[in-house]
Amino acid sequence: MSGLVLSRRDLDFLLYEWLDVLALTERKRFSEHSKETFDAVLELSEQIAVRHFANHNKKADANEPYVGDDGKVVLIPEVAEALRAFGEAGLMSGQFDDSLGGLQLPTSVSKASLLWFQAANTGTATYPFLTMANANLLIEYATADLVDSYVRPMLEGRFYGTMCLSEPQAGSSLADITTRAELQDDGTYRVHGTKMWISGGDHELGENIVHLVLAKIPGGPAGVKGISLFVVPKVLVDTDGTLGERNDVSLVGLNHKMGYRGTTNTLLNFGEKGGAVGYLVGEQHKGLAYMFKMMNEARIGVGLGATALGYTGYLHSVDYATQRTQGRPLGHKDPTTAQIPLVEHVDVRRMLLAQKAYVEGGLALGLYCSHLVDEQTTSEDETVRTNAGVLLDVLTPIAKSWPSQWCLEANSLAIQVHGGYGYTRDYNVEQFYRDNRLNPIHEGTHGIQGLDLLGRKVVADNGAGLALLVSTIQETVSRATDGVAAEYAEALSLAVQRVVGVTSTLWGTGDPALALANSSVYLEAVGHVVVAWLWLEQLLVAGDKEGAFYEGKRTAARYFFVYELPKTDPQFDLLGNLDRTTLDADVSIF
Amino acid sequence: MSGLVLSRRDLDFLLYEWLDVLALTERKRFSEHSKETFDAVLELSEQIAVRHFANHNKKADANEPYVGDDGKVVLIPEVAEALRAFGEAGLMSGQFDDSLGGLQLPTSVSKASLLWFQAANTGTATYPFLTMANANLLIEYATADLVDSYVRPMLEGRFYGTMCLSEPQAGSSLADITTRAELQDDGTYRVHGTKMWISGGDHELGENIVHLVLAKIPGGPAGVKGISLFVVPKVLVDTDGTLGERNDVSLVGLNHKMGYRGTTNTLLNFGEKGGAVGYLVGEQHKGLAYMFKMMNEARIGVGLGATALGYTGYLHSVDYATQRTQGRPLGHKDPTTAQIPLVEHVDVRRMLLAQKAYVEGGLALGLYCSHLVDEQTTSEDETVRTNAGVLLDVLTPIAKSWPSQWCLEANSLAIQVHGGYGYTRDYNVEQFYRDNRLNPIHEGTHGIQGLDLLGRKVVADNGAGLALLVSTIQETVSRATDGVAAEYAEALSLAVQRVVGVTSTLWGTGDPALALANSSVYLEAVGHVVVAWLWLEQLLVAGDKEGAFYEGKRTAARYFFVYELPKTDPQFDLLGNLDRTTLDADVSIF
Repeated sequence: MSGLVLSRRDLDFLLYEWLDVLALTERKRFSEHSKETFDAVLELSEQIAVRHFANHNKKADANEPYVGDDGKVVLIPEVAEALRAFGEAGLMSGQFDDSLGGLQLPTSVSKASLLWFQAANTGTATYPFLTMANANLLIEYATADLVDSYVRPMLEGRFYGTMCLSEPQAGSSLADITTRAELQDDGTYRVHGTKMWISGGDHELGENIVHLVLAKIPGGPAGVKGISLFVVPKVLVDTDGTLGERNDVSLVGLNHKMGYRGTTNTLLNFGEKGGAVGYLVGEQHKGLAYMFKMMNEARIGVGLGATALGYTGYLHSVDYATQRTQGRPLGHKDPTTAQIPLVEHVDVRRMLLAQKAYVEGGLALGLYCSHLVDEQTTSEDETVRTNAGVLLDVLTPIAKSWPSQWCLEANSLAIQVHGGYGYTRDYNVEQFYRDNRLNPIHEGTHGIQGLDLLGRKVVADNGAGLALLVSTIQETVSRATDGVAAEYAEALSLAVQRVVGVTSTLWGTGDPALALANSSVYLEAVGHVVVAWLWLEQLLVAGDKEGAFYEGKRTAARYFFVYELPKTDPQFDLLGNLDRTTLDADVSIF
Repeated sequence: MSGLVLSRRDLDFLLYEWLDVLALTERKRFSEHSKETFDAVLELSEQIAVRHFANHNKKADANEPYVGDDGKVVLIPEVAEALRAFGEAGLMSGQFDDSLGGLQLPTSVSKASLLWFQAANTGTATYPFLTMANANLLIEYATADLVDSYVRPMLEGRFYGTMCLSEPQAGSSLADITTRAELQDDGTYRVHGTKMWISGGDHELGENIVHLVLAKIPGGPAGVKGISLFVVPKVLVDTDGTLGERNDVSLVGLNHKMGYRGTTNTLLNFGEKGGAVGYLVGEQHKGLAYMFKMMNEARIGVGLGATALGYTGYLHSVDYATQRTQGRPLGHKDPTTAQIPLVEHVDVRRMLLAQKAYVEGGLALGLYCSHLVDEQTTSEDETVRTNAGVLLDVLTPIAKSWPSQWCLEANSLAIQVHGGYGYTRDYNVEQFYRDNRLNPIHEGTHGIQGLDLLGRKVVADNGAGLALLVSTIQETVSRATDGVAAEYAEALSLAVQRVVGVTSTLWGTGDPALALANSSVYLEAVGHVVVAWLWLEQLLVAGDKEGAFYEGKRTAARYFFVYELPKTDPQFDLLGNLDRTTLDADVSIF
């Protein structure tokens, strides 16, 4: 079993020692579960990920999907084999209800198990991940008929799912989509339009593809208020569940990307031959709200995916730095002595420590948010449920953007540790770096996360989200009373005060353009404060426990407080000064 | 003529308005030159770069060199056509002496003209660039016979050159090379060994390839003191200049890289069939010193190459942001109104401004150093010559590393401005990002530049280099007496004091391991201070001159002082605190 995909030891630490997910088994929904069942699913995930996903990660990158002479998309055969193993293990339905054949796993445990696949092969993992997100949305909002016809086959691994939001002329601006859906006498719709960037948009992996399509019903409100959501299958399904005719959905072309090459990414036409049959999900004109519920989960998923790529890159670079010898200790120039392993050079340790602080910090953030989902959906205490939702809302843009930025940086450091070898395709780290560069772009760009955090999340409900985040962090601070933990807690407390101060200063201007001029800087600064908090949490759990693992947690926490948190000071200064540089910059100067 | 390769307006500003390169024409070496000849070479370079280099940048990336059935390396035909155009224009010998058929251009003007090629197609540009560096070294240290036999054909574009330093077991650690050269009765040597990462190491572009090989002569001193330098041609050249037999140099394989794919990068065996014929350059055991003279120029060249890639990416993203419409102004949600160009969103302007500050700052740094080479080699004032050399020594690690870090970041921002399109291979920016990721690795990694700056350059001659850098910056500060320039000058002056302070604190420990523990952080902090200085210089030249170009300089300077220079404060804090985190980190924790 390769140790370079992810660290089971770290997952155990976060899930059991920190988040105490075993306490969830006392709740009705998870009462069939125990440490044994959680361990089993984590173990099984690791095995399948290493055996069936990691095995073709490089091959899928080097052999992109293409459209064959028959117009069908061709993938390397290992992808279908991996998905067969994934489906047979019941992992497609792990988080879903028993009534749907699921395991009713807590979200935190489910996300941890799925992380193995994102780390082993993000390109292949995208097919089931999109399918699960699609199913999750339909289970929540679609009729029982749609669930029976489309969701059950997805959870059985026979159908796959997509999300069709963007259009060529409307990437981040969904108000401008032009795909339209016209109501027919039989209650179905006919969908016409073009969708761009559709991952998993066409392939022959299953019997069918279930597209979730955002479209406008003519006569409805303009902009985002007139967006509805439709199920538009690739192949129509008869009432008895058998596959019928091909629907009017056609593949225009495949996009060729820098990374994520194993995932088909497509331009799709709906309705070239008269209209694609679509089924309304929920009510008319509420499509964006439904999609956004899914989108919030997808955003946390992007952060976890970025973390997974950073994590595997970190483990690869540790492995290389431990085995490869090069140079001698400082001041020992005698060329007749043996060379030392790279890890013994202090600057290499700096690069490993930075990666460790980023990827373990990102993992803590993603699992914390996943645990909040468990609290929000299953706590028996209404206040806990409500607060978990409020905290999740404010943390979501950070959970998406912070790992996308810093675990990408980790991947760059993993290349650097490898030197020239890391820049070649003979090693794995350059692919992780290329794959991870997508994450600051999709599911809402970095800039959009900044606007979401500063423009919406911290001001909603008179700042209830920010206030709860602050009190939650202060609770941790109050427990850090000894030694370096107390020292870090003081630094964290000051940083939190600055978050509160600049938020107030920015919105005190009464000028949204000025307040939001540096929302990306705000996003990055608050993200660092949040991850510093999660490092303090980890430090408190590690305490003075013995062994290299806990010493590693203590050292990475120290790294984060010494090297990383202080980076926020100049960011808060900039924000507090209400800097207008970018606002005043005239477009003619570029 | 495409405007997306480089900015001639900016080159003119830096060369004529700031560095005053026309003053060089008063010196004997450049007395045949004038504004007209400088302009002509810049114009010609732009034309050839756009027409013959930019045209196949993507094609060369998508069609890597490969070894054909006959064992010969196959490149796309456009590479040879580009090099023919480059050679015919006399650009291969632009910087060399009239006696060698050169144009005797100042280094600053020559580097500016060559930058067009690095920006247009860094993969193809590498072949002539390595050849020129090789020729430059041989002109300085080799016998007239070697110059006649090998350098003249290189400058005529008939031969190409390489640098063979690294070996599979010795990347950054040249003390450990094992290639050996045995003296023969006829005064030649027989070379045996394996060289790794040799760019341009094999191809059929010219009649011959001139390898410059570091090797050890048996019986010589151990380590770097026993390294000698040899000319080892691919094909032996008879005394009358005609090509003779194939030398004993063989291609083992090609390396496949993330970027720079147009450049062959090879593993070469010397002496598989009894020994490759080699000719000693200069004296025995002085090879590393010769190579390091070239290496210093190569390092500035790497910085300029990184800048070139950042610059072209910046121009591509400005073009995209100006043409692509998406979304509406803040607070204007009416979807029936037209969408606005991306550049009107403040966060897009932030990303453009950051790129502008990085790439124009990097260009100023590279051209300043090139101008120092002119001063060092041609000033009639001995003090000026000496000082230029001292300043160049201290600036070289920064000139190499700063653009490699920040112009790579610019390439990442260029992708981000393009959104999902930037991540596809239909656009150009993802290639720039992949190409540029090499630059923090080759010609001395980022970490090695940090050790060079803090461990050698700022302490050499009792700190003469640092003292001169400080007084040079303070001279600029003293000229910044009005308005924002005075304000920035004060911030710069404080930052310079911190450089001096932490340098003294670090070395005051008397413990080199502790002093150098954070040499990479030192490198990055001092780099930002140096570039802030060069932005103040540019701001002073721009003054209150009218027009968008000068307004752009003022805005980018403001950006650098507001967003970038303050990042150094926590870095100086860390250094001043003599932080031991990385030093104390035990290797077992990873």
